[in-house]
Amino acid sequence: MKTLIDLNADAGESFGRWRLGHDEALLPLVSSVNVACGWHAGDPATMRRSVELAKTSGTALGAHPGLPDLAGFGRRALALSPREAADACLYQYGALRGFADALGVGVTHVKPHGAFYGLTMRDPAVADAVADAVASVSTDLVVVLLAGPTADRIAKRGLRVAREAFADLEYDENGDIIIEPEPRPKDPRACAEQAVAILGGTVRTTAGTRVAVDADTICVHGDRPNAVEIATAIRERFADEGVTIAPMHDVLSAHRS
Amino acid sequence: MKTLIDLNADAGESFGRWRLGHDEALLPLVSSVNVACGWHAGDPATMRRSVELAKTSGTALGAHPGLPDLAGFGRRALALSPREAADACLYQYGALRGFADALGVGVTHVKPHGAFYGLTMRDPAVADAVADAVASVSTDLVVVLLAGPTADRIAKRGLRVAREAFADLEYDENGDIIIEPEPRPKDPRACAEQAVAILGGTVRTTAGTRVAVDADTICVHGDRPNAVEIATAIRERFADEGVTIAPMHDVLSAHRS
Amino acid sequence: MKTLIDLNADAGESFGRWRLGHDEALLPLVSSVNVACGWHAGDPATMRRSVELAKTSGTALGAHPGLPDLAGFGRRALALSPREAADACLYQYGALRGFADALGVGVTHVKPHGAFYGLTMRDPAVADAVADAVASVSTDLVVVLLAGPTADRIAKRGLRVAREAFADLEYDENGDIIIEPEPRPKDPRACAEQAVAILGGTVRTTAGTRVAVDADTICVHGDRPNAVEIATAIRERFADEGVTIAPMHDVLSAHRS
Amino acid sequence: MKTLIDLNADAGESFGRWRLGHDEALLPLVSSVNVACGWHAGDPATMRRSVELAKTSGTALGAHPGLPDLAGFGRRALALSPREAADACLYQYGALRGFADALGVGVTHVKPHGAFYGLTMRDPAVADAVADAVASVSTDLVVVLLAGPTADRIAKRGLRVAREAFADLEYDENGDIIIEPEPRPKDPRACAEQAVAILGGTVRTTAGTRVAVDADTICVHGDRPNAVEIATAIRERFADEGVTIAPMHDVLSAHRS
Repeated sequence: MKTLIDLNADAGESFGRWRLGHDEALLPLVSSVNVACGWHAGDPATMRRSVELAKTSGTALGAHPGLPDLAGFGRRALALSPREAADACLYQYGALRGFADALGVGVTHVKPHGAFYGLTMRDPAVADAVADAVASVSTDLVVVLLAGPTADRIAKRGLRVAREAFADLEYDENGDIIIEPEPRPKDPRACAEQAVAILGGTVRTTAGTRVAVDADTICVHGDRPNAVEIATAIRERFADEGVTIAPMHDVLSAHRS
Repeated sequence: MKTLIDLNADAGESFGRWRLGHDEALLPLVSSVNVACGWHAGDPATMRRSVELAKTSGTALGAHPGLPDLAGFGRRALALSPREAADACLYQYGALRGFADALGVGVTHVKPHGAFYGLTMRDPAVADAVADAVASVSTDLVVVLLAGPTADRIAKRGLRVAREAFADLEYDENGDIIIEPEPRPKDPRACAEQAVAILGGTVRTTAGTRVAVDADTICVHGDRPNAVEIATAIRERFADEGVTIAPMHDVLSAHRS
Repeated sequence: MKTLIDLNADAGESFGRWRLGHDEALLPLVSSVNVACGWHAGDPATMRRSVELAKTSGTALGAHPGLPDLAGFGRRALALSPREAADACLYQYGALRGFADALGVGVTHVKPHGAFYGLTMRDPAVADAVADAVASVSTDLVVVLLAGPTADRIAKRGLRVAREAFADLEYDENGDIIIEPEPRPKDPRACAEQAVAILGGTVRTTAGTRVAVDADTICVHGDRPNAVEIATAIRERFADEGVTIAPMHDVLSAHRS
Repeated sequence: MKTLIDLNADAGESFGRWRLGHDEALLPLVSSVNVACGWHAGDPATMRRSVELAKTSGTALGAHPGLPDLAGFGRRALALSPREAADACLYQYGALRGFADALGVGVTHVKPHGAFYGLTMRDPAVADAVADAVASVSTDLVVVLLAGPTADRIAKRGLRVAREAFADLEYDENGDIIIEPEPRPKDPRACAEQAVAILGGTVRTTAGTRVAVDADTICVHGDRPNAVEIATAIRERFADEGVTIAPMHDVLSAHRS
């Protein structure tokens, strides 16, 4: 069983008058945060607050680019071309970088959101374009992708990839995650159990079988109503199991060495 | 009369299916370009093309942040707070920076667009917030503001400012520029004449008087139908007059030394 | 003291993934509802739900057009021309009408939202353009404006106007309302007290004076956290005072006859 | 060969500062116009102008709802649910209706645009939802769909459908149209030839075969650079062939009787 892992959360998903998530409570509980960049959620004021929160809590700051679909929260599939996908990453990464530069914080990673994540997993040309766009900014910048064949392929191309697994999502028999249109509360103990199983190298599927998973980082969704309870439960289980939580750069250094 | 000046153009103002401007022809004629960043004009594909063009033609690349008003092309006043104005600059500067990083080009300056420019000139708290936001990214990054008291005040605060004058706009008696809702063709020779007058330190007003102007950079609007002809006429006049065109960093170094 | 009044609420102000207000509880408590139409809040799914709610609860359905500023919730001033203001009303009224037609409900009134309401009050040419646009759709369609000189002027032009007063906003010495950037809870009893005072023909200002107010309808803001408690308190006070609540068409017929 | 047909054009596809199409010249040449409603193109001012143009030229006015993707001009597939598709139609139809009511013009039909049209053709549940939404507004309102099995199925359900064929697009072997990302000029005579072939009941495919087509209306795309020349050529050929051009309501009455 692995004893070092990154715990990441999607956050900064408020927009203007509308609030979502409990970022103040959640960010100190995770080692990496993926901040919405204005296309599916997140306005400039929210982005600034998210960067300030990440700075204060010492959480590694990442961009969470989404599809240009605010009304759909980036969860409806949109057929971007590989070039459009790359440009969507660069634009949104950059927008976050503006606030990060102003506040003296680095941006360490990029993780596509929702249906953009799904598109990247499904379309190899999009995955390559996204990974190349991230690498073109800096060879240090990490792209976060679902642990599995796509991530492995990108890694073999020599690019920096963090392979992700999910503590709060169900997996189908093929090892694919099942996305909910709108996250509902989940049992924190069950999520913690799944997180520990992931460290052991497998995850249970909805069919009752187990599939192998080799992950560098585990995600908790910030817009799940009880995200804070889930993250807390995971941290407690990890402490009991002797697992250390660390930003993905540290994990990648350890896992790859 | 000054013999060194920056010539800047607003560009990258297409959006999706819609084309505007003649950037391929215009960029090689100017020493600095201000690229729209998606709020008033400019989508990611257009921004990428603009950065490529700036790189190819050796034009200094700047961000041209606008108000969030695509339907109004950023030319309708919107009451942003100073903090919102600062965040609007950081977001849009950053978005352009994403493409600049990917293509290995630096971003040298930030110039608010249209009604955002007007708001900055009218509201000292906004001007300070915008200038501070630009300086917070890097002390090397230049903010471009109308030559006049606001720019002088910002410069006295120790921030890097390029003072701008306009070859293709009319000035009123107070030395304020008169913004058109939609630029129409202008006589290239008259624009070149006005550019030379600016180098001499004055500009003629619509009342027939002259007002003093002390400029580091002269603007040509890229969405004016005959922008290329105007820029060409200015270059020819400048050649005749022995004026050298150079990026604003070079001009600032020379003018401030 | 008046014994017949309309009670209206702004509602339908959720957007996509984000929820705002307690419309299911609020709509049965008011006689008229103003539904956001997608520019400052309200997506199509939310609009459909709002029309269904209005139909179920027998609440008169109105359009609540806002400025095209989702990130600012329509509360930042934007300088629309009179023509642009008229077109903004027609577009958003029409969009709501699409759902109203599909569900067999009529649209009875149009009330500009937030900074659009403020612009209408401040700029007589905008007020005329908005009122004329509403009247051009149907002479039966009512425009809702702040009780005061603008509304009186529009009424004198022969157009149908409902003059509005606010139970949950403070008034300054000039009789102008003081808009909050983000509504906070207010004492329901104080709001009910203000509603009764309005029926008596005056409202207390922040300076401690009283100004005259002659209203056909009283507003409760749906995005105030305790809007339901406020509406309930008003209804109870009105019952005690023998005041009847009725849709604005009925009130206008009675007040004008 | 049919001797009565509707000729329709997509129009009103400018947006804000950006102009597209030659609507003033094109609208008098067609019997029906489909006006963009703000989601893929068309701002309120453009919509008003389009309604005025339709009124002046006596062209039957229809809504041309698109996907919420301005940057992609509605030509990138977005996975709307049937309910979302219905709501998208109602919202945009209604928005156009606002201007139509104000100017005293009726709205006769609804035709989805671009990738929305494609989604409707591909997904039977979406086709049903769109057709039902149109019918829920008024049993007189016509939905325009590609001539083929989907349109036939909707017609069998008793709803009013105009079956459409294209003079300026290529057909593949299955009788499906081949959408271009950005229309280029086409030979007007070839388009007129294809229009006449459609009246004869077949259209040539890219494979050189012919497929049957039974159409009530023939489309010319307004954003094709030489749309006016194409419409003119079709009109001249139709005059030569004794074909009468009439709005789709007249054609449906004749074809269905």
